[in-house]
Amino acid sequence: MNVTVRGRTQHYRTVAFDRARNTVLLIEQRLLPHEFKIVATNNFRETAGAIRDMIVRGAGAIGATAAYGLAQGALAFHGRDLKKFSRHVEAVYQTLKDARPTAVDPVNAMNDVRAAMRAGQTVEEQQSLALAAAEEFANEDVRHCEEIGRHGAKLIRNGMKILTHCNAGWLAFVDIGTATAPMYAAQAQGKKFHVFCDETRPRSQGATLTAWELAQQKISHQIIADNAAGHLMQRGEIDLVIVGSDRTLGRTGEVTNKIGTYTKAVLAARHKIPFYVAIPLSTIDWNLKRGFDIPIEERHESEVLGAWGTISNPQSARRAYIRVANPTSGARNPGFDVTPAELITGIITPAGIFKPAELWPRRLELGFAH
Amino acid sequence: MNVTVRGRTQHYRTVAFDRARNTVLLIEQRLLPHEFKIVATNNFRETAGAIRDMIVRGAGAIGATAAYGLAQGALAFHGRDLKKFSRHVEAVYQTLKDARPTAVDPVNAMNDVRAAMRAGQTVEEQQSLALAAAEEFANEDVRHCEEIGRHGAKLIRNGMKILTHCNAGWLAFVDIGTATAPMYAAQAQGKKFHVFCDETRPRSQGATLTAWELAQQKISHQIIADNAAGHLMQRGEIDLVIVGSDRTLGRTGEVTNKIGTYTKAVLAARHKIPFYVAIPLSTIDWNLKRGFDIPIEERHESEVLGAWGTISNPQSARRAYIRVANPTSGARNPGFDVTPAELITGIITPAGIFKPAELWPRRLELGFAH
Repeated sequence: MNVTVRGRTQHYRTVAFDRARNTVLLIEQRLLPHEFKIVATNNFRETAGAIRDMIVRGAGAIGATAAYGLAQGALAFHGRDLKKFSRHVEAVYQTLKDARPTAVDPVNAMNDVRAAMRAGQTVEEQQSLALAAAEEFANEDVRHCEEIGRHGAKLIRNGMKILTHCNAGWLAFVDIGTATAPMYAAQAQGKKFHVFCDETRPRSQGATLTAWELAQQKISHQIIADNAAGHLMQRGEIDLVIVGSDRTLGRTGEVTNKIGTYTKAVLAARHKIPFYVAIPLSTIDWNLKRGFDIPIEERHESEVLGAWGTISNPQSARRAYIRVANPTSGARNPGFDVTPAELITGIITPAGIFKPAELWPRRLELGFAH
Repeated sequence: MNVTVRGRTQHYRTVAFDRARNTVLLIEQRLLPHEFKIVATNNFRETAGAIRDMIVRGAGAIGATAAYGLAQGALAFHGRDLKKFSRHVEAVYQTLKDARPTAVDPVNAMNDVRAAMRAGQTVEEQQSLALAAAEEFANEDVRHCEEIGRHGAKLIRNGMKILTHCNAGWLAFVDIGTATAPMYAAQAQGKKFHVFCDETRPRSQGATLTAWELAQQKISHQIIADNAAGHLMQRGEIDLVIVGSDRTLGRTGEVTNKIGTYTKAVLAARHKIPFYVAIPLSTIDWNLKRGFDIPIEERHESEVLGAWGTISNPQSARRAYIRVANPTSGARNPGFDVTPAELITGIITPAGIFKPAELWPRRLELGFAH
């Protein structure tokens, strides 16, 4: 999407590749929203480091980064010995996989790249197939988000007020995003609407990343405390909710997403406000039988007990962590929650909008692979 | 309640009076939870300043502070001329009233004191009646909270997990508090239970004040992000919700309280978890016909866009505000919300526990004055 830096507006992808320099180009997300900077990783080890250190985050974005990283590593190989090359590629794969061991997207993306490489007969052929496959992975991520936008934009009418939670925006993907895709598509169609961004404590991705995205895209928006959505719904100030999801259960239509999503779905159901979840098909889990079995990551309590932000001094602004809470108290910090199908109006996918219960009957067309 | 400072445990009221020095003693709440300090105001102007500058906050606490401030001002008068004395008292009253012009508690408290003074024939008699009335106002606030605790403790069983929102604790009253009163009473009865404190963004009173109180009282507790309660309820980890209220409508049973209360009530109803509101009878509004007519204060957006806390340097800790949100985004910041009667299991008052619909039929016994 577009970013304006010192008055100059330019299109950026979250993840891109510079063929001439064999570098991966990443938006340094840890500095957002206070600073915009592109980082170039010079070799696959640096690319793995960028994944590990969360310069890049979000399912689609780290998938594409790993795919590019694998191609980058392959391209750096000098020689014609296919066996040595294969061993080298294997080491690159492992390094990138180890950067975020619990994430499934880098592995899936790199498997795509490896599968494509097998058609090559020489090192050189395999190298160029690797890069083509990585580019295709990134482009497909963008196309999927575009399709989500095309379907989802139909839900947005002029004058609507839309609530979103956390960041399922273009920073979490290669471009466009999922929950934000309908908004960007509706904007392109000339529709006027307003977005409320839940700040999304404890990590505040709504207040930082989503608000930054919408500001860059010049979409009318305001940040609200996570406590405020219920009141706004009660007073008729929210017409539509769109969120993303890390894992949607194909068998039940249950949706795993950032902590607080379930609460917003309960509130929306009470107020008869449509609640939509926007996802790429790759995040559908066709195996798990019930959401209750999804392990909920308990994150470090320091996230709840304080906050990260910028301190303004007359001279300079610097990033700092402050302790907000009572110094002798601890915290619980579940990172995700599960929203049952009954609270979800529809699931916006690149293949169309479905009711949660429609996923399983349509599983073959939606990519069920077993 | 008890506060432990450098290993020494001592009982403190939020507001107290030192007769010998004619000073009002206040816990400096702006420093909590990071520092505990008692402030002594030397005259009624300083006492008004403490109300204005929010050294003291909370309905019962500012009521008692104003009552003591009026007595303090009266006691500082030298002479026997009743007319001059009355003019002086009127000026004191006005100064204290102007300290927080929209608050109703200081006015009600001072009206009590003024009414009691009228029985005195001399300046000296009126002075001592003023102090006695102020002490009685404070003691009555404590007795009411004790009664709330006595009734509410019956709701708490061994092993329960209790959710509370914001701070309706002893810091908001002279002692004990309302939402916390059942907890302190149950603890005194030897019951074991655990409290989840909603951090209560944007001002974080749960993470700061309530957590500090519970830590001082050695009650097992953890802070959670406002987003997390829904998930915990879903997983069966919350058995009871108790909150306070700034204004409860006697005619409808609707409850006004800190933003986010409504959301917790909706979640509790979905999960069939009892949702109680603990209030002194003085906060019942017998006039207003519907909660929708309650004006909801829209507070400054800086509260949502950042956070206050303590920065730890190797050398020192200091208070600071950090900007969390995207610098080019704004915020909506409603301060309160209204919870409908249908979501409220019961209202815990000094006179017993009532269903919301019971308030109006019992209005005469509950203090309806029209």
